[in-house]
Amino acid sequence: MDNSTNLTDAQRIDWLRLIRSDNVGPRTFRSLVNHCGSARAALERLPELARRGGASKHLRICSEEDARAELEACAELGVRLIAPGEDGYPPRLAELDDAPPLLGVRGIRDVLMRPMIAIVGSRNASGAGLKFAGILARELGEAGFIIASGLARGIDQAAHRASVESGTVAVLAGGHDRIYPPEHTDLLEAIVEHGAAISEMPLGHVARAHDFPRRNRLVSGLSLGVVVVEAALRSGSLITARLANEQGREVFAVPGSPLDPRAGGTNGLIKQGATLITEAKDVIEAVEPIMGRPLELREEEDEPLVGDPDVADRAQIVGLLGPTPILIDDLIRLSGASAAVVRTVLLELELAGRLERHGGGLVSLI
Amino acid sequence: MDNSTNLTDAQRIDWLRLIRSDNVGPRTFRSLVNHCGSARAALERLPELARRGGASKHLRICSEEDARAELEACAELGVRLIAPGEDGYPPRLAELDDAPPLLGVRGIRDVLMRPMIAIVGSRNASGAGLKFAGILARELGEAGFIIASGLARGIDQAAHRASVESGTVAVLAGGHDRIYPPEHTDLLEAIVEHGAAISEMPLGHVARAHDFPRRNRLVSGLSLGVVVVEAALRSGSLITARLANEQGREVFAVPGSPLDPRAGGTNGLIKQGATLITEAKDVIEAVEPIMGRPLELREEEDEPLVGDPDVADRAQIVGLLGPTPILIDDLIRLSGASAAVVRTVLLELELAGRLERHGGGLVSLI
Repeated sequence: MDNSTNLTDAQRIDWLRLIRSDNVGPRTFRSLVNHCGSARAALERLPELARRGGASKHLRICSEEDARAELEACAELGVRLIAPGEDGYPPRLAELDDAPPLLGVRGIRDVLMRPMIAIVGSRNASGAGLKFAGILARELGEAGFIIASGLARGIDQAAHRASVESGTVAVLAGGHDRIYPPEHTDLLEAIVEHGAAISEMPLGHVARAHDFPRRNRLVSGLSLGVVVVEAALRSGSLITARLANEQGREVFAVPGSPLDPRAGGTNGLIKQGATLITEAKDVIEAVEPIMGRPLELREEEDEPLVGDPDVADRAQIVGLLGPTPILIDDLIRLSGASAAVVRTVLLELELAGRLERHGGGLVSLI
Repeated sequence: MDNSTNLTDAQRIDWLRLIRSDNVGPRTFRSLVNHCGSARAALERLPELARRGGASKHLRICSEEDARAELEACAELGVRLIAPGEDGYPPRLAELDDAPPLLGVRGIRDVLMRPMIAIVGSRNASGAGLKFAGILARELGEAGFIIASGLARGIDQAAHRASVESGTVAVLAGGHDRIYPPEHTDLLEAIVEHGAAISEMPLGHVARAHDFPRRNRLVSGLSLGVVVVEAALRSGSLITARLANEQGREVFAVPGSPLDPRAGGTNGLIKQGATLITEAKDVIEAVEPIMGRPLELREEEDEPLVGDPDVADRAQIVGLLGPTPILIDDLIRLSGASAAVVRTVLLELELAGRLERHGGGLVSLI
C-alpha cells in the first residue's frame, strides 16, 4: 500500500469495507492489498479465497452501504477515519506491521504527529503512584511531549488529567461512541479539546477482555517509549511493556519498595532490562537520541497471489500446522512449496477463520 | 610480605610497632616492608626516611613497650591481632592494597573465613526499610552467608540483629573498647557469640568523622557484595557503594518510590549500574558465580629502596606534585627518574606527613 498520498473517497470506502469484513485484521488487510493490488480487487477475491481455505460458513463482507453509513456516523461524531501516511496518522504507529489500516481520530489531529510518551499503570494505584504519574505527565508535557494512555482508572486517568492542556491522546479499546469506563466521558471531552481520542474499532463496538491487549499495542506503538508507573506482577500494564519491547519501543519503569505489591511488576521490569526512571529528565534523555532517527520503513511483500494452489500443496501445509505457533519460514522450508503458495494458503485459511497470526512471523491453526 | 605463614611473636610486635607509628598507613606499611625486607628493618630506617622527606617534626615511632602493652590489653578483651593470610583474616579483605596489616578480631574467627554480604543503609531508616533489611539478612544467613555491617543505628542494626544466630560481623570505626553508638554495646555482645567484631584501630581510639569512610572500605572489602537498603542522596552508604565499586565488589540497591527521599540514593545507584534487588535470591544468584572464582593475588612491588635519592631528583619530583592527585606512573614518566627513585621519594614524603595516597595509584601533596 502507498503511504505517501491521501485516499480518494472511493478508496476509503473500499478500505473500510475490507477491514470491516469477517476474518480480516490489520495484517490480513495488508497482505490482501499487497497481493491483490488494491482493496477493491481484494474484496472481489475474498469469497473464493475463504471457500478454498475451508470456511465452514459464508464470509460476511461489509457492504458499500454499511461502509457509507459508518463514515457518515463518524462524521457526525467528529471522527475521521485516517489511513497510514495521511495527516493525523501517528508516524510511529504506521511503522507497525499490524498498524490499523484506518484509525478513527477525534480531536486535534496535529497532536498525533508530535512525539509521544505513553504512561500506563495500575487501575487501583496508590496515592504516591497517582501523584507521580501526574508530575511526570505534566513535566513531559511542558517539555513538548504528548502523553498517550488508555483512559482507564488510576494511573491512566492521572496521566491524562495532568496533560489535558499540553496535549494527551486517549486510546480506546471500544468504538468512539462506547466510552469505557463510562465515568470518564467528561475527562475524554476535556482531552479532545487540546488532544485526541483514537480507536481502530467500529462505532458501537463495546470493548471486551481481549480488546484491551489489542488496544495496548496501539498505546505503545504510537509512542517513543512507555513508562510503567505502578504495576503488580501479572498485570495488564506488563502486557503493554512486553508489546513495547517487541515493537522496539523504550520501556521505562518507576521503582518501588519490595514490600509494596504494586511495585512488583515495575521492579521486575527493571530486573529484565527496563530503564529505571524517577523523573521526566530520565525519560527525555533516553528518547532524545531516538527522536532524530528516521522512521523505519516496513518491509513490503508484494508478490501476487497464486491463482489456485495445488490441492496436495494445500493439504501438506495444513498438515504441518497445529495449535502450536510455527514460523512461516519454517513452513516454507518444511513443505518444499514456494513462498507464494504458502502465503496464499495461509491467507485462505485466515479468511476462513482457521488461522491465527501471532506476530514475529508465527502462525497457528485455531 | 609473605601471607602464607603465621607471624612469630617477635614479628607481630614489629608489625604492630610499624603500623602504630606516625604517618604509617596500610599502604605505606606494605611499601616499607616490601622495600626494606621486614618490619624490623623498616623501623630502623624510618627516622632517616622521614628526615629526608622534610619532616617538620620528630617522627613518633611506636615503642616495643607500647606494642606489648597493646597486645596484652587486647588479650584481656579477647581481641586477637591477625595478619593477612593468618586464620581469621578475611580472605577477600587480604586482596586489597590497603588491607590492614593487623586486624583486631573479637569473637568467632571462623565466620571471617566464610562468604560475606554487606548490608548497609540509612541511620534514620523507614519502618519498611528496617523490615526489609531484617528479612534480607535472615534469608542470606539461612543461605549460609555471613552478614557484614557497621553497627550503626537503623539499617545496620536491623541487619545485624536478624543475623545474630546465623553469623554477623560488626566492623568498628573506633577501638574495640570504644563502641559507637554506645547503646549498641549489648547488640555487639550478642554478635560476638556466633559472629565477630573487627577493627583496625588501636584500643582507646574514639571514632571521628573521617574514620567512618575508612571503616566503610573494610565493610565492602570483606564482602562479595554490598546491599544498600535505603539511602538518601549524598549519604554515607553511597560512599560504601563507591568503595565497593572501586574494590570490584558487587553493588546491590533496593529500589523505592521516587517520592521517598530515603530511596533517592538507592535509585540513583541503580541508574549508575548497581543491580536492583528485591529479595535474597537476587543477591545469591549474582554472587554465586564469583564465589567459585579464585582470589586475586596482590601485585607486589619488591624493588629495594634507593639508598639516598639524588637531591636534584627529589626536588624535581616534589615540584611535579601538588594538591591535585597525579598518577605515580605519570610522575615517573614526567620526571625521567627511575621507578625506584620515585617510589623512595614518595615514601619519604609520606613518612614526613607531606603526601597523601588516594588509591588507584594516585598521590598528592598535603
